[in-house]
Amino acid sequence: MIDFEDRRDELLEQIEEMIVRKQYAHLRDLLVEMKPADIASLFEDLSEEQVPIVFRLLPKGPAAEVFVELEPESQEMLIRGFSNTELKEVLDELYLDDAVDIVEEMPANVVKRILKHADPDTRKSINEILKYPEDSAGSLMTTEFLDLKRTMTMEDAFKRIRRQGEEMETINVCYVTDEQRHLLGIVSIRTLLLADEGDTVEEVMDPNVVSVNTLDDKEDVAQQFSRYDFIAMPVVDTENRLVGIITVDDAIDVMEEETTEDFEKMAAMLPSDKPYLKTGVLETWKARIPWLLILMLSATFTGIILSHYESALSACLILNAFIPMLTGTGGNSGTQASVAVIRALSLDEVEFSDIFRVIWKELRVALLCGVCLGGANFAKMMLIDCMLLHNAAVTVPVATVVCLTLVFVVFFAKLVGCALPLLAQRLGFDPAVMASPFISTIVDALSLVIYFRFAALLLGI
Amino acid sequence: MIDFEDRRDELLEQIEEMIVRKQYAHLRDLLVEMKPADIASLFEDLSEEQVPIVFRLLPKGPAAEVFVELEPESQEMLIRGFSNTELKEVLDELYLDDAVDIVEEMPANVVKRILKHADPDTRKSINEILKYPEDSAGSLMTTEFLDLKRTMTMEDAFKRIRRQGEEMETINVCYVTDEQRHLLGIVSIRTLLLADEGDTVEEVMDPNVVSVNTLDDKEDVAQQFSRYDFIAMPVVDTENRLVGIITVDDAIDVMEEETTEDFEKMAAMLPSDKPYLKTGVLETWKARIPWLLILMLSATFTGIILSHYESALSACLILNAFIPMLTGTGGNSGTQASVAVIRALSLDEVEFSDIFRVIWKELRVALLCGVCLGGANFAKMMLIDCMLLHNAAVTVPVATVVCLTLVFVVFFAKLVGCALPLLAQRLGFDPAVMASPFISTIVDALSLVIYFRFAALLLGI
Repeated sequence: MIDFEDRRDELLEQIEEMIVRKQYAHLRDLLVEMKPADIASLFEDLSEEQVPIVFRLLPKGPAAEVFVELEPESQEMLIRGFSNTELKEVLDELYLDDAVDIVEEMPANVVKRILKHADPDTRKSINEILKYPEDSAGSLMTTEFLDLKRTMTMEDAFKRIRRQGEEMETINVCYVTDEQRHLLGIVSIRTLLLADEGDTVEEVMDPNVVSVNTLDDKEDVAQQFSRYDFIAMPVVDTENRLVGIITVDDAIDVMEEETTEDFEKMAAMLPSDKPYLKTGVLETWKARIPWLLILMLSATFTGIILSHYESALSACLILNAFIPMLTGTGGNSGTQASVAVIRALSLDEVEFSDIFRVIWKELRVALLCGVCLGGANFAKMMLIDCMLLHNAAVTVPVATVVCLTLVFVVFFAKLVGCALPLLAQRLGFDPAVMASPFISTIVDALSLVIYFRFAALLLGI
Repeated sequence: MIDFEDRRDELLEQIEEMIVRKQYAHLRDLLVEMKPADIASLFEDLSEEQVPIVFRLLPKGPAAEVFVELEPESQEMLIRGFSNTELKEVLDELYLDDAVDIVEEMPANVVKRILKHADPDTRKSINEILKYPEDSAGSLMTTEFLDLKRTMTMEDAFKRIRRQGEEMETINVCYVTDEQRHLLGIVSIRTLLLADEGDTVEEVMDPNVVSVNTLDDKEDVAQQFSRYDFIAMPVVDTENRLVGIITVDDAIDVMEEETTEDFEKMAAMLPSDKPYLKTGVLETWKARIPWLLILMLSATFTGIILSHYESALSACLILNAFIPMLTGTGGNSGTQASVAVIRALSLDEVEFSDIFRVIWKELRVALLCGVCLGGANFAKMMLIDCMLLHNAAVTVPVATVVCLTLVFVVFFAKLVGCALPLLAQRLGFDPAVMASPFISTIVDALSLVIYFRFAALLLGI
């Protein structure tokens, strides 16, 4: 793969030189050979004066494609510099769902100007899509799809495709509707091409359509794409009338966003929707400080438990040295279980009704892990601490307390780790938010209680 | 969306009843209305005797599609039950890349049987694809693509598409090659349909092709799909000869696998490639125990540091109560930074050369977070511990030590958290593996050293 990133610096230099030397024809030739996503990525490194110069060199079609790929700040800057004619030209070339995405990001006065210069049909459609909730299938769809009637022959169908195909985001799948726009079936362009000329659309279409509703959550929609290997998915209203389609490239974007959000939630951050380096310091701080504060306060409970056992600790100070190892191992064991379950939940591999299978599995894994870790730790304490380092405080009873605690801590950590995400989802909370950050707090507190119980029992303190 | 999962139990019951009553025609009618992925999912809940019965009712095309979606265990079971004719029929219907996936999962004797009954061309192609390394673009591609010659007219092109289209995994994009199979350009079926009849392929094709090499890593390939919004991507050998294509559905599978792996690595597990509930207890244990052992041993360093300050601790036991809060907050702060950077790395938003920008950003965020947390904690210690609970041990100097430590811990945790993944990647390690599990160990140790330094300085112990 000749990676664009490898040529990036070189290209940037060339472009900047061409601008300085006013070699616009050359620059245009260079640009038309590049992919829109790559041009957009270069724009991020050009100055505010250079961007409009380069943008105006692009042919209409590619210009719109580049525009879509830009960061909202650059889009706004360009729109503010556009003449009304230029704005209209770009708007005419945009696919509807992309236009909606842009409108959603712009400040009110820019939106007003965009809507003023969009043609009436587009304006109506944009306003319609804007009505859907932010995370819904409706907000993600485009209303530019190819619909066929069931009585059409192949000749009629291809006539329509040739007439309307230019405007549509995809013609790879066409949709068959009746007069009331009810969705009757789908038919791929391949099926149409391979059909006999005399066939009607009804004869070749697939009437078993998987569709989503305008109000379905976009994460569920993306999951359907990966399940059924679709390249486009019809969106219907509550009366099964076809209102739009979602294409696979938008579904992929949703998958990536949702994955990033899951990572952020598990790492105790509020989700942000901007790339890492584009997020300001204050914004990042705002996303991170709430959970840090909550978890800091909840960790004081662990501190209270520790204080509670102060006298036991001062009677046998060596116990203190093993606390980080015990709570750390507990936290790691719990996180392993919770992350495995959270991921399985988001891939639809597991649901709440599987909770007993999940717990039964985790408990057996926990037993195996606990015994291994306890055994390894016992051996290490006896061989290294006791015999090699002659640490008189590390006795067989102390090692027994530590290792028994370890077995139980791992056991409870895995139990909490696997059950909490399932319960959270059942109760309507986000499993990723509820589970990971809290698990270490819960496990820390549990570990200490178990530890000092065993110490009281076996060491008599 | 009428979710399949909601109807699952009902369908399963219906199918089982129809089998018992031998209502095979009804069952067949029910099945042809369902999507292959859904049928495959039901198969997982049918008994070993029922699966072949239902499978044999499916028409040839859907049968192959269902077969592809099954778990390897079910595939093997079915193949072992197939007659030679049945095996050949399924093999003929499979797309080549799916056949390769299946062959990769089967034991040697089954593979032998499959290759024996595949037609010679397919056998040759399967063997060719099997030669590519497991994570390469080559292993992911199919060799069934539509290639056109540049001198073809639209009429020639459509003739070829109609003749060969049935066999191909996709005809939405066609590839233009010369006699030596060098890739000259791509052309979408839409472009072909909208072109004038007299146009030649060369006139309408896009000669600026983004392609990947057979040996490119499949994760990078998937990244290109999301960057360029492709639905298929050509794969070329080192001499730019077209050898295959990768379709977007396979790229989505790779994205999901890689995301799962990243989650697993960050949670200190070895990656597994099976769904959660399909992985056995021993297998899960094997994936989890190595990191638990390593991290348990590395946590003993924290213990050693604690032991080292034993006398300081016994002089001021109240200090102990704040250790879980300090190490916990440090761990959380570090994880936030590391997860943000790891995710940005895997989305190509950040690279090693950005390290100073990343550090500069994180340090400012750290300062804000640290000051907030320190302030909040100071207020809490003074108002609650000191004034409300009358804990005489919590004095202004003690609170100062704890809160100053907090500021520094957050500062260093963010620094380590953001720098470690970047350094890991630079050194050729996996950032997700290196970073998350180690960060808490490093931060724990750092926190304690800083804490006792401040205690010595301000409390004179």
